Amino acid sequence: MSELILRDATRADLSAILAMLAEETIPPDRKADPGDPRYLAAFDAIEADPNQRLIAAELDGRVVGTMQLGFLPGLSFVGSWRGLIEAVRIVGDLRGQRLGERMILWAVDQCRARDCKLVQLTSSASRTDAHRFYARLGFVQSHVGMKLHLRD
Amino acid sequence: MSELILRDATRADLSAILAMLAEETIPPDRKADPGDPRYLAAFDAIEADPNQRLIAAELDGRVVGTMQLGFLPGLSFVGSWRGLIEAVRIVGDLRGQRLGERMILWAVDQCRARDCKLVQLTSSASRTDAHRFYARLGFVQSHVGMKLHLRD
Repeated sequence: MSELILRDATRADLSAILAMLAEETIPPDRKADPGDPRYLAAFDAIEADPNQRLIAAELDGRVVGTMQLGFLPGLSFVGSWRGLIEAVRIVGDLRGQRLGERMILWAVDQCRARDCKLVQLTSSASRTDAHRFYARLGFVQSHVGMKLHLRD
Repeated sequence: MSELILRDATRADLSAILAMLAEETIPPDRKADPGDPRYLAAFDAIEADPNQRLIAAELDGRVVGTMQLGFLPGLSFVGSWRGLIEAVRIVGDLRGQRLGERMILWAVDQCRARDCKLVQLTSSASRTDAHRFYARLGFVQSHVGMKLHLRD
């Protein structure tokens, strides 16, 4: 099997990453023009933040997955850092091949390397397949995730 | 009614904040010695991060509440920032007086001022009173929150 390379994304990956985000975002993000300066500004903000990482998963030279990792300082658990996994996506034609599992296990390792006490994520309430996937990797569904939208 | 002052916490607030965290943390954080260098390191890490804010809520010169605000850059929603509310606590003797509501509404305003598209939080699955509280403020329970503990 080809090697899955997990690494920080570059601007050159943005087009492939935005295509994956557009494919799965709920509601669909119809405006995914990689040349839109707002995407470039967001990429730059992530890259400038030492506690945020945008990840590209590469297989045979093709970007086939993405996720964003955050490392959050906090007082709880005697001042422990926490890892945050967000915006996990895999290209449609490569799902069901355990690429997601390899991505998440790698992400957990990155959190361990940053001395995080725990890793947290939220998953859409309707995605019971995703909940089972994360449960298999040891995640416990202990919380509810709530969102307040401030603008359209 | 006395004015609730919401502001960034200082090191001098740490003792009061840790007492509130110890009171409610699940499982209880029994080691909340404010002089523990790990707490000071965590405070410094939050203060050094321009995208993290530890908040103290002050009433008549007493620190009566705390929360942590995070501002996360991301590609979704055309490169929008998201606000994250964590570790919300109010002292035991002042609950049920809508201080929490004033804290969260203020936090939402801070997220708006940072041009966030949305505000997100997780709440322990068992705290249905908290879910109702956030729902009343407009938060929608759209996700499940999952955690993986990496060490004790």
